[in-house]
Amino acid sequence: MHKITLLISCKDTQGIIASVTRFIYGKNGNIVYIDQHVDMEHEVFFMRLESQFGESPGTLDDFKNEFSHTIAEKYSMSWEVHTDDHKPGMAVFVSKYDHCLYDLLGRYNSGELRVDIPFIISNHNDLRPVAENFGIPFHHIPVKRDNKEEAEAEQLKLLREAGVDFIVLARYMQIVSEKLINQYPHKIINIHHSFLPAFPGAKPYHSAFKRGVKIIGATSHYVTEELDAGPIIEQDITRVTHAHSIQDLVMKGRDLEKIVLARAVKLHISRKVMAHNNKTIVFS
Amino acid sequence: MHKITLLISCKDTQGIIASVTRFIYGKNGNIVYIDQHVDMEHEVFFMRLESQFGESPGTLDDFKNEFSHTIAEKYSMSWEVHTDDHKPGMAVFVSKYDHCLYDLLGRYNSGELRVDIPFIISNHNDLRPVAENFGIPFHHIPVKRDNKEEAEAEQLKLLREAGVDFIVLARYMQIVSEKLINQYPHKIINIHHSFLPAFPGAKPYHSAFKRGVKIIGATSHYVTEELDAGPIIEQDITRVTHAHSIQDLVMKGRDLEKIVLARAVKLHISRKVMAHNNKTIVFS
Amino acid sequence: MHKITLLISCKDTQGIIASVTRFIYGKNGNIVYIDQHVDMEHEVFFMRLESQFGESPGTLDDFKNEFSHTIAEKYSMSWEVHTDDHKPGMAVFVSKYDHCLYDLLGRYNSGELRVDIPFIISNHNDLRPVAENFGIPFHHIPVKRDNKEEAEAEQLKLLREAGVDFIVLARYMQIVSEKLINQYPHKIINIHHSFLPAFPGAKPYHSAFKRGVKIIGATSHYVTEELDAGPIIEQDITRVTHAHSIQDLVMKGRDLEKIVLARAVKLHISRKVMAHNNKTIVFS
Amino acid sequence: MHKITLLISCKDTQGIIASVTRFIYGKNGNIVYIDQHVDMEHEVFFMRLESQFGESPGTLDDFKNEFSHTIAEKYSMSWEVHTDDHKPGMAVFVSKYDHCLYDLLGRYNSGELRVDIPFIISNHNDLRPVAENFGIPFHHIPVKRDNKEEAEAEQLKLLREAGVDFIVLARYMQIVSEKLINQYPHKIINIHHSFLPAFPGAKPYHSAFKRGVKIIGATSHYVTEELDAGPIIEQDITRVTHAHSIQDLVMKGRDLEKIVLARAVKLHISRKVMAHNNKTIVFS
Repeated sequence: MHKITLLISCKDTQGIIASVTRFIYGKNGNIVYIDQHVDMEHEVFFMRLESQFGESPGTLDDFKNEFSHTIAEKYSMSWEVHTDDHKPGMAVFVSKYDHCLYDLLGRYNSGELRVDIPFIISNHNDLRPVAENFGIPFHHIPVKRDNKEEAEAEQLKLLREAGVDFIVLARYMQIVSEKLINQYPHKIINIHHSFLPAFPGAKPYHSAFKRGVKIIGATSHYVTEELDAGPIIEQDITRVTHAHSIQDLVMKGRDLEKIVLARAVKLHISRKVMAHNNKTIVFS
Repeated sequence: MHKITLLISCKDTQGIIASVTRFIYGKNGNIVYIDQHVDMEHEVFFMRLESQFGESPGTLDDFKNEFSHTIAEKYSMSWEVHTDDHKPGMAVFVSKYDHCLYDLLGRYNSGELRVDIPFIISNHNDLRPVAENFGIPFHHIPVKRDNKEEAEAEQLKLLREAGVDFIVLARYMQIVSEKLINQYPHKIINIHHSFLPAFPGAKPYHSAFKRGVKIIGATSHYVTEELDAGPIIEQDITRVTHAHSIQDLVMKGRDLEKIVLARAVKLHISRKVMAHNNKTIVFS
Repeated sequence: MHKITLLISCKDTQGIIASVTRFIYGKNGNIVYIDQHVDMEHEVFFMRLESQFGESPGTLDDFKNEFSHTIAEKYSMSWEVHTDDHKPGMAVFVSKYDHCLYDLLGRYNSGELRVDIPFIISNHNDLRPVAENFGIPFHHIPVKRDNKEEAEAEQLKLLREAGVDFIVLARYMQIVSEKLINQYPHKIINIHHSFLPAFPGAKPYHSAFKRGVKIIGATSHYVTEELDAGPIIEQDITRVTHAHSIQDLVMKGRDLEKIVLARAVKLHISRKVMAHNNKTIVFS
Repeated sequence: MHKITLLISCKDTQGIIASVTRFIYGKNGNIVYIDQHVDMEHEVFFMRLESQFGESPGTLDDFKNEFSHTIAEKYSMSWEVHTDDHKPGMAVFVSKYDHCLYDLLGRYNSGELRVDIPFIISNHNDLRPVAENFGIPFHHIPVKRDNKEEAEAEQLKLLREAGVDFIVLARYMQIVSEKLINQYPHKIINIHHSFLPAFPGAKPYHSAFKRGVKIIGATSHYVTEELDAGPIIEQDITRVTHAHSIQDLVMKGRDLEKIVLARAVKLHISRKVMAHNNKTIVFS
């Protein structure tokens, strides 16, 4: 254990930063990154801290125990600590569109995404060759009106067995059930093809075309029970004109979708996102 | 009459461009700009053409007559022709916010906006000094629950007497009546402080803050009867983070609002905007 | 022959548009797109026109002959006409970076790029598996100090035999010779990883880091003899901060490079780019 | 003294954050903002911290003394502390262009810029009426080939007498002398009308037009002895096309210039910029 990332939230009060940094210093840690945010409205304090240790300050469990008793309990903190020993497991759900999948796997291949991808799940068989080209197991789990529960059970089984940490919906064209969401709270990342809250739900490019907007967008967010209403992680936009057809919007949108999704995934992997009150704090 | 701008729309069919350009050529005109658009869905053809004439091809009335009989009737065109002899009259409506007003008047002063501004109308007296600094008449017409009709009658009288061509609502915080809108169809330009269709109506920055968006925007559109739902002329956006308060969004938004409004006004003045079916064609 | 795209440039004078559109109309063509530009400084006129024909107006050769005699000679035009019968042949040159290649091949696979890719050429063997995954022939032609001429001869032979129309340098890390450039004038598209003219040549991300810029960019341009100085087709940028390392810039830049290159390639394929005087006209 | 902003830089080592936050906590301060940066290459640590105090922790002088002896000396820090009691004095230098001046004064008027503006200096008399409209003293100090030293002496006298803290060159078309720069190190903010390092020096819009770039920019930076080569504070860009004339670039550029300059000025006023090694750290 030579590097940790610590995420904290608690009621805002004096002395938190001093206490935490003192603790790290006491372990001979060198803080290489600290960022904090205070939600003034709700008086909540958030902090993200990265520390390096010349020599390991002991086991992760000891560290956690001591931090818990010395600091966390005093301030009634919600907190998590991550070490760089663990590579997160990321499951990818897709349907038929391949642009986000190619983009994610290209980044994975080049080492840009520091994750394990135990498998790809799809309700269609179309993208199996892509998965195979990249040497990643592909599970075809069809979802139909009358087999939703079984399909989901099969998904959950696979996720559990592989110890998946988080799920990326890379243009997965199915609504994810409450049960799955509750098992992975703020751990399912979706890409929606509009600048939310404009055009939630189906066919946003059609709606954007009809409304005559001059800008289209894409939004990556954590999935919550309400459709396309979860905490927004990242958004971006591109300009369009009257000359663009719906098909042009779809094509331009694809470039947005893959970039925005990749940014959100990278932020999540580097533990830079904290969700609170249906919004995100995204540390820089 | 040495330069004209011709705007045309009609059912799409063969030969329109050939006929129109032939007509201009027959008048010894040099076409310096031509752009067209076909709305494939509704089979409507749109064209904008600028032509220069070494010597005047006669009076504007003669030109119009001949164009009407030779071309426009044949294709059942909607059309308008503008010469550079006429400087459009632009009325500005404001309330208390001054940033859009300063911006417009600064551009007017420097010659960037080729218009006459016969007066500024406001429901408050606060911005009178700004108007006076720029030497522009200022009419304070308070609008209250019980005097709406009278206030509007006074506005309309001023607009008519000055022969105003179009109206700019530079953060005018009142809803404009159906009667005024009908007198100036697609000639009232509003600036709304969100990327429509997200956050229409009141307090969009508050809503944006609450939703936790990572991008805020501004939208300039023609005013129609439905609030914030008219044809969009121009939009732009800027990034925000969790660290920005509502007040920060308001401040960042001001810079968007003034730029987006100015762009829309300039497009309108240069006759580059055609409205159709609650959308705009914005020629480049 | 049911659809043509016509590109024209000539000295600016009156009547060109009228003559050309009259010609198309005479062939029962329906003009679905027309755009023009006048370079005022050099008095050069540029035009791009797309026309559809209900029934074919005859062979392409006849069309060309007639256009040449009736119109082109009169105005001393440079011109080309393309039909949608021909799919352009696009060769891709790469070295070791794979992000642009994955992106191009993903678009090719999904039908977004309407080209044939006869082969990929590389001075390294690293990306052979990527080419094979997509079922595209891969030629490894090493380039060393002492074999440049032979390597180039081999490249030219392959290009000629396959009847390649244009070449994409997808992060090809070799300088292309004058001979190759002369064989493919304004037909070699490069992606440079800076917002040119800032940071031409090697290691632009290092230079950008050193200068402390707040924005980095990517530029796609036609290759000419002077390094990174050819006509710019497309550029885009992204924001960076003091917190980004050189490695961060490289990673963020990759997303720019692939998008900007893809946009340039698509513009080129759709014949929307005309080069003149070391600049481009990019029709919308 | 109820709020302080502390800026620190020193050699990077362990325990700095712990020591400083402990010190603030010991004074009953509530840290509302902390941000830090480590320049890995040069092993320099930078920190910005804002703290509020329920009751004043004593005089500023006492605070400084204690901080100096307890902390700063130990780590050989460069540091400054600012309280919100002092409103910085900002001098504005202009020539003939009015867009940046209008923009700054509009923001000043509306309370967006928390500064005092003791005067505006210009080498021309043209903008005197603007200054007078806003009620700000205007000094016309002509600069000619043979009076440079006297002009500068007059400028320095005015600056000193008014206790000016920093200077904004709002399109001031004169090169500022070494002497003035040395008196106000990293305290003279310029706006240059290009995305530096592209197109430094005179007539950047002409150069951008000639090169055929698809993006133009503006850059705000601290003035150093080398022209347009000082630490960059903020940049932004806008898209242009082949259809834009030089005059169009100038007009579009004006909107960039004023926004980029205003952002830089606001960052400077809020003490969010630290300059080091000809680059800036800009805290968010």
